[in-house]
Amino acid sequence: MAIAVGIIGGSGYTAAELLRLLAGHPNVAIKAVSSRAEKGKKVSNLFPNLGKSIALEFLDPQDPAFLDCDVVFFCTPHGIAMQDAPRFLERGIKVIDLSADFRLKNPQVWREWYGMDHAAPLWLEKAVYGLPELYREAISKAALVANPGCYPTAMALGFLPLLTHRLVDPKSLIANCVSGISGAGRKAEVTLLFCERAENFKAYGLPRHRHTPEINQTLKTSHPDAEVLFIPHLAPMVRGMHATLYADLLDDARDLSQVYQDFYRHEPYVEVLEGGFPETKAVFGSNFCRLSPFTSNGKAVIFSVIDNLGKGAAGQALQNFNLLFGFDEHTGLLPGLWP
Amino acid sequence: MAIAVGIIGGSGYTAAELLRLLAGHPNVAIKAVSSRAEKGKKVSNLFPNLGKSIALEFLDPQDPAFLDCDVVFFCTPHGIAMQDAPRFLERGIKVIDLSADFRLKNPQVWREWYGMDHAAPLWLEKAVYGLPELYREAISKAALVANPGCYPTAMALGFLPLLTHRLVDPKSLIANCVSGISGAGRKAEVTLLFCERAENFKAYGLPRHRHTPEINQTLKTSHPDAEVLFIPHLAPMVRGMHATLYADLLDDARDLSQVYQDFYRHEPYVEVLEGGFPETKAVFGSNFCRLSPFTSNGKAVIFSVIDNLGKGAAGQALQNFNLLFGFDEHTGLLPGLWP
Amino acid sequence: MAIAVGIIGGSGYTAAELLRLLAGHPNVAIKAVSSRAEKGKKVSNLFPNLGKSIALEFLDPQDPAFLDCDVVFFCTPHGIAMQDAPRFLERGIKVIDLSADFRLKNPQVWREWYGMDHAAPLWLEKAVYGLPELYREAISKAALVANPGCYPTAMALGFLPLLTHRLVDPKSLIANCVSGISGAGRKAEVTLLFCERAENFKAYGLPRHRHTPEINQTLKTSHPDAEVLFIPHLAPMVRGMHATLYADLLDDARDLSQVYQDFYRHEPYVEVLEGGFPETKAVFGSNFCRLSPFTSNGKAVIFSVIDNLGKGAAGQALQNFNLLFGFDEHTGLLPGLWP
Amino acid sequence: MAIAVGIIGGSGYTAAELLRLLAGHPNVAIKAVSSRAEKGKKVSNLFPNLGKSIALEFLDPQDPAFLDCDVVFFCTPHGIAMQDAPRFLERGIKVIDLSADFRLKNPQVWREWYGMDHAAPLWLEKAVYGLPELYREAISKAALVANPGCYPTAMALGFLPLLTHRLVDPKSLIANCVSGISGAGRKAEVTLLFCERAENFKAYGLPRHRHTPEINQTLKTSHPDAEVLFIPHLAPMVRGMHATLYADLLDDARDLSQVYQDFYRHEPYVEVLEGGFPETKAVFGSNFCRLSPFTSNGKAVIFSVIDNLGKGAAGQALQNFNLLFGFDEHTGLLPGLWP
Repeated sequence: MAIAVGIIGGSGYTAAELLRLLAGHPNVAIKAVSSRAEKGKKVSNLFPNLGKSIALEFLDPQDPAFLDCDVVFFCTPHGIAMQDAPRFLERGIKVIDLSADFRLKNPQVWREWYGMDHAAPLWLEKAVYGLPELYREAISKAALVANPGCYPTAMALGFLPLLTHRLVDPKSLIANCVSGISGAGRKAEVTLLFCERAENFKAYGLPRHRHTPEINQTLKTSHPDAEVLFIPHLAPMVRGMHATLYADLLDDARDLSQVYQDFYRHEPYVEVLEGGFPETKAVFGSNFCRLSPFTSNGKAVIFSVIDNLGKGAAGQALQNFNLLFGFDEHTGLLPGLWP
Repeated sequence: MAIAVGIIGGSGYTAAELLRLLAGHPNVAIKAVSSRAEKGKKVSNLFPNLGKSIALEFLDPQDPAFLDCDVVFFCTPHGIAMQDAPRFLERGIKVIDLSADFRLKNPQVWREWYGMDHAAPLWLEKAVYGLPELYREAISKAALVANPGCYPTAMALGFLPLLTHRLVDPKSLIANCVSGISGAGRKAEVTLLFCERAENFKAYGLPRHRHTPEINQTLKTSHPDAEVLFIPHLAPMVRGMHATLYADLLDDARDLSQVYQDFYRHEPYVEVLEGGFPETKAVFGSNFCRLSPFTSNGKAVIFSVIDNLGKGAAGQALQNFNLLFGFDEHTGLLPGLWP
Repeated sequence: MAIAVGIIGGSGYTAAELLRLLAGHPNVAIKAVSSRAEKGKKVSNLFPNLGKSIALEFLDPQDPAFLDCDVVFFCTPHGIAMQDAPRFLERGIKVIDLSADFRLKNPQVWREWYGMDHAAPLWLEKAVYGLPELYREAISKAALVANPGCYPTAMALGFLPLLTHRLVDPKSLIANCVSGISGAGRKAEVTLLFCERAENFKAYGLPRHRHTPEINQTLKTSHPDAEVLFIPHLAPMVRGMHATLYADLLDDARDLSQVYQDFYRHEPYVEVLEGGFPETKAVFGSNFCRLSPFTSNGKAVIFSVIDNLGKGAAGQALQNFNLLFGFDEHTGLLPGLWP
Repeated sequence: MAIAVGIIGGSGYTAAELLRLLAGHPNVAIKAVSSRAEKGKKVSNLFPNLGKSIALEFLDPQDPAFLDCDVVFFCTPHGIAMQDAPRFLERGIKVIDLSADFRLKNPQVWREWYGMDHAAPLWLEKAVYGLPELYREAISKAALVANPGCYPTAMALGFLPLLTHRLVDPKSLIANCVSGISGAGRKAEVTLLFCERAENFKAYGLPRHRHTPEINQTLKTSHPDAEVLFIPHLAPMVRGMHATLYADLLDDARDLSQVYQDFYRHEPYVEVLEGGFPETKAVFGSNFCRLSPFTSNGKAVIFSVIDNLGKGAAGQALQNFNLLFGFDEHTGLLPGLWP
């Protein structure tokens, strides 16, 4: 069985990674990819890695080809999917939105952080947050999946066991996070040039990064008082996300390693290390999250790594696609590269 | 159908890439991986990208598990496979050797370049050089495949159309080649440290690199007078190989682009560009070779790129495996990553 | 006036940077450089950037040439300087020790963290901790300067204003630090290879890094209860150190930016940003520390960047040298590179 | 004595490096820096490495401050200096032009390669080509110095000994060159993003790079028939230029190493290696060129490395400045960094 797939917003790095994964999925036929800016150009002109794998040209998003798809992925900047997804949903076409549009359940919070009214509050209500470790069942039945942000994924998988088991003070959470530069997108900006970012490390996205309400919303489902101080940084690498999470321990005695092992025992894409600390390179190109807990000075310190384009975006979207269409969850999701 | 696979010499980067590809191949069961130095350690300790994909521990190469395999890959330094492969071959177990041991047809040339007598000259005679673009038919029936070196692959695919069509002076060939650092292997040497190689570019491997007799042997099958001046360099990147090939044109009038398009029209893993120049990133993590010809000052200038661990080693080995066992040549060989 | 300078332990990256700076200092004559392992080899064989600047060969550390020096720098691993420095000090030769040997005032703490008795407790007592921002006056009169570690420098300059002004809870301090890979030294280890560290980010040096007692000792001079939870990480860059420092604010109302501006107003090598967040590239190759404070969720968040080989090692050693010999503090300390 | 210096076109990487060097020069006072686009912004906003070293803001190029300078450096794109430099020259203000405007002696050739008439053919005639190894004497007396391009510098220093001594066929020259990415400038283009250039190597700038007529002009001064096939490439590093130069030997017997040693014996910024091959990192941040000759298959193969921003631009401009104003040639030109 081949599922007909369309991608709206196909010129960014999230779309590039999604195209790579879809091209290797045995049950997928990529039917249409849109980009207003690159319309008529071959997809493989932008992403030459796909030269022999995808023969399509970029279409206008209004092209009728998208209406013949079984599922449409949105890889657009925020503010597009909430306008454009309903026409697919109303026709019964599934939507997996990799943008931020359907992640925040409360339309007021959306307005506060994005400076615009939400265009589809009814669909927002029906959207399922696509974190399989929390909502696997609901995802498999959803019409519309709101694929989580990269930082919220890394933070949520790290904090949830602590909060669920009431092991830490929910008001004490700090997330010191580091992203590869692909997280900033494929934008022609001086600050993203090779010569500006090589041999460079810095904080950015402050005073408040838009992933803050998303992670707080997720953590509050586990503990109503949870709130994170979130400080993002950029490291000189293309891919990779590393979260160092801090929380004040309520109970020093618990073996955190065992807690984490138990919590994620049946999860195919979360791996709790038995020793040592996770490296981002170990998940480069894959859908895995690798975790290890550590305690010191009365605090829990959790290390959580993902590929920001993998489990942090396109990998997780494909995991959700597999759930949505009843495929084995591993289909098309292969190990990452080393070195 | 699952083919039982063993790997001798599993602790280097070539083996790491081969393990990644085999782990994603739908018709493979990895049975045994050896490393004398790492015996008893989990494979995923060295290569954490395989954490959830491979549960094996490194075995001694003499472990009986290898005798239950259908095929054994050698990823050893030179001088090992020629000693150790015959015991498998004599039992009817196929061997794909990624080392240099069975590449040079002439045992005298072997002795001259490697400073030792060849230990298995009879098997050397039977070995098939694993460049599918030249020897697809023979590979599919081989007992022993000598997988080509990375530089010889990039050079051969670039030079062969020129020599076959007698378009250039076979004595004028220059190959200015560049490799990513993984080509130098996983060796604890100061010169390979991050701090020594970052922001650094240099020639190395001179006065004469051991890939020289291999490429000359291949090119002489096309033109008896062919001989290359081969200058290798190291660039500050993990993977990727770029060959800039020069040759004096005999006939200025031919459209080289058309010559190359025709030559590789039916090849699944060689892509001749219609414009522009190939980038190594476009083949990162894949088995593709991308090529483009250019002419200037009476010379042909050919650009040829591969991933040194992909088409230059493990990818090509998997392509040969597919031929050997009758699988579709694409099986388990997916597009590379961008970015 | 030319000061005669010797360097014991000249084959590591700290020595390399010190040699570069000394070679450009108008009042320095480099007389002798030692390395047991590289004895007899030209210094510029290891550090080819010095090819036309330094003609010396590595000597044995017992070579009499060192006794003709006015000052000897130690760039040795810990445990050497405490054995070897007294013979210079007793002759009236100044010593600037870039190793850890004279940093911890309490010999018991030294024994606890380094697993050996301190060999020169009397000189330990006389040693001056070489952080000019705290001890400028004492450094200028010292016989023996204990040059601070890289992490302690970045952390101390960031935390001191908060503690001195009693603005934060001294028990709440967290230091999430990131170092370039040169901080791990010039050692032939697999884990430091280009192919292992490129595109990679991870925590390391835990459960407890040896810079912990050093930073606590410094902070306790400012507030007796100060104690830091220190988590170091490695980023894929050669140089650069970034500290993100967290502390619970006691008084939300103070303008931290003004506090920091005032605190460092007269310091030549600390720069408090007027806006934005400091980048490590801005101090690459220089002796500067760049700082900016930020507040959120009731916490102070301080960003502090240095070059781990500059202000974190050789640059600060040269600043101390200038103080010790009465030169203008800027002599030989030039701006860093961009890009 | 302090020379009053102005810089026209101060927002690019060449200007950034020149500002760094000038800030460390003991006889320079930087008076004015222009940028139309960044007018009114602090120079240290763009180049934060200069934060404590340069307090200036970017001025309009027509600002009268430039008329009080003793020398004006142009770091503009081509086509500007030829319009703007005459107003300084006519007032007796020296000009060092780092752009291409005054490099090509023949205004017809200029028109052919740059698609516009030359605006100041009389000054073009008076301009001295700023390669000290060829024109030291003339530079010291010049009104206008045309600072060479980066590629032509690396190629000329490599080829000149061969041509001068009539050791090679002047029609056989091939220059396979590699540049760091800063050579492409500080331009907001997708193709220069970190994510596009990391782990990437490619040829570019073809069919014909504008440095071709410049290098041919220089080589023809040594041998009238000289002509180069020049193929430039981009490597994933910020700085560094590596030229691998090929030429057919006329006389196999000469010891090239001795030829090169003799040719550059008295040159302060050219270093001929006694063994091994030069690495770009060895000249990172410096004004040095490092060279080594090699012979194979009847060809001379010369390796030549510079920092494209150093000897390839700002370093050489400072060397020319020193010649022009009678300072020791080394003033303000320090060793590069390692690591």
